[in-house]
Amino acid sequence: MNKGRVYIISGPSGSGKDTVLKEIFKVMPEIKFSISSITRDMRSGEVEGEKYNFITRERFEQMLADDELLEHNLFLGNYYGTPKAPVINCVENGQDIFIEVDVNGAAQIRQKMPDAVSVFIMPPSLEVLKARLCGRGTDSDEIIEKRLNEALREISRAPEYDYVVVNDNLQTAINNIVSIMSVDKFKTDRNLNLINQVLSK
Amino acid sequence: MNKGRVYIISGPSGSGKDTVLKEIFKVMPEIKFSISSITRDMRSGEVEGEKYNFITRERFEQMLADDELLEHNLFLGNYYGTPKAPVINCVENGQDIFIEVDVNGAAQIRQKMPDAVSVFIMPPSLEVLKARLCGRGTDSDEIIEKRLNEALREISRAPEYDYVVVNDNLQTAINNIVSIMSVDKFKTDRNLNLINQVLSK
Repeated sequence: MNKGRVYIISGPSGSGKDTVLKEIFKVMPEIKFSISSITRDMRSGEVEGEKYNFITRERFEQMLADDELLEHNLFLGNYYGTPKAPVINCVENGQDIFIEVDVNGAAQIRQKMPDAVSVFIMPPSLEVLKARLCGRGTDSDEIIEKRLNEALREISRAPEYDYVVVNDNLQTAINNIVSIMSVDKFKTDRNLNLINQVLSK
Repeated sequence: MNKGRVYIISGPSGSGKDTVLKEIFKVMPEIKFSISSITRDMRSGEVEGEKYNFITRERFEQMLADDELLEHNLFLGNYYGTPKAPVINCVENGQDIFIEVDVNGAAQIRQKMPDAVSVFIMPPSLEVLKARLCGRGTDSDEIIEKRLNEALREISRAPEYDYVVVNDNLQTAINNIVSIMSVDKFKTDRNLNLINQVLSK
């Protein structure tokens, strides 16, 4: 059986990444999404095992000590990380899996999984990015400015990714990610079985 | 302007590579094809500048000395090579260019142009490969056996390529190469202008 592919997906606030991923999951419900392990308290509306596994700090530090994470970070005193085992299981079973992660997490995963394909979702222009960040209408100028600077900091690391998908039109962005995944099936590392079959005369 | 892409295309006898490339050129006549410089005599039906530039051995050796070739080989006393300048001009002008070359030439180009995308066109099975090589009906068993071994030697180097496209159904093979080229437009190195535009606030 051919292995599945790990897709690292990042995109700043204002890229529309969350909507893109939700729509992709509708088109391809067979895609797995990695579930992060985190140590912060559960917020209202969150469900254990849906987007996060809520674990203790002790358990997280044990996972760190045992090298059981593909990436992790510490944010406002809480740990966030991607457990390695479920991702590897998926790939070994021939399933593709998406890991939604920030630019630092993406860099850590790339180190450990050089075969992962990384996609950065971009706003089409600075103007659109600004408009999207202001769009909620409820935030102060200071908070918007902070969010814009954070988005620009992430975009400055887009060149580390394999692909850049511009989210101007939602449907086009979705189609483009689906195309990236279709073409990935022609990559040589996913066709070694065929090559070996032809050679085994 | 975004740069064009160099596509290295290989495929053994029996892969149907020539037909695939002819059809791709019909679908996308804007694609450039690299013209080889060779030192053998022109054969009947060949036209200077169509598939080959026929040059003297002295000129070829001068090009070699001046590092003007992306790849070359010596076959039955004649030189064959891919001149560097036309390929670089194409890419700088934002045009994609195909270089049809064998597995050794491909390896040389990859060394010099790590950004080139390489595609190996494969027969779907050993049985089909054998049938295609016998199909002409005019060759001796010995010649067919020799051609088969040469094809298998090339296929054993398919893992060096970025993509493997199976030519079982001609139209599917063409569509798959066209898809590879479409998705290539989302590669990060072809979107650096956009990234820089968004960042230039």
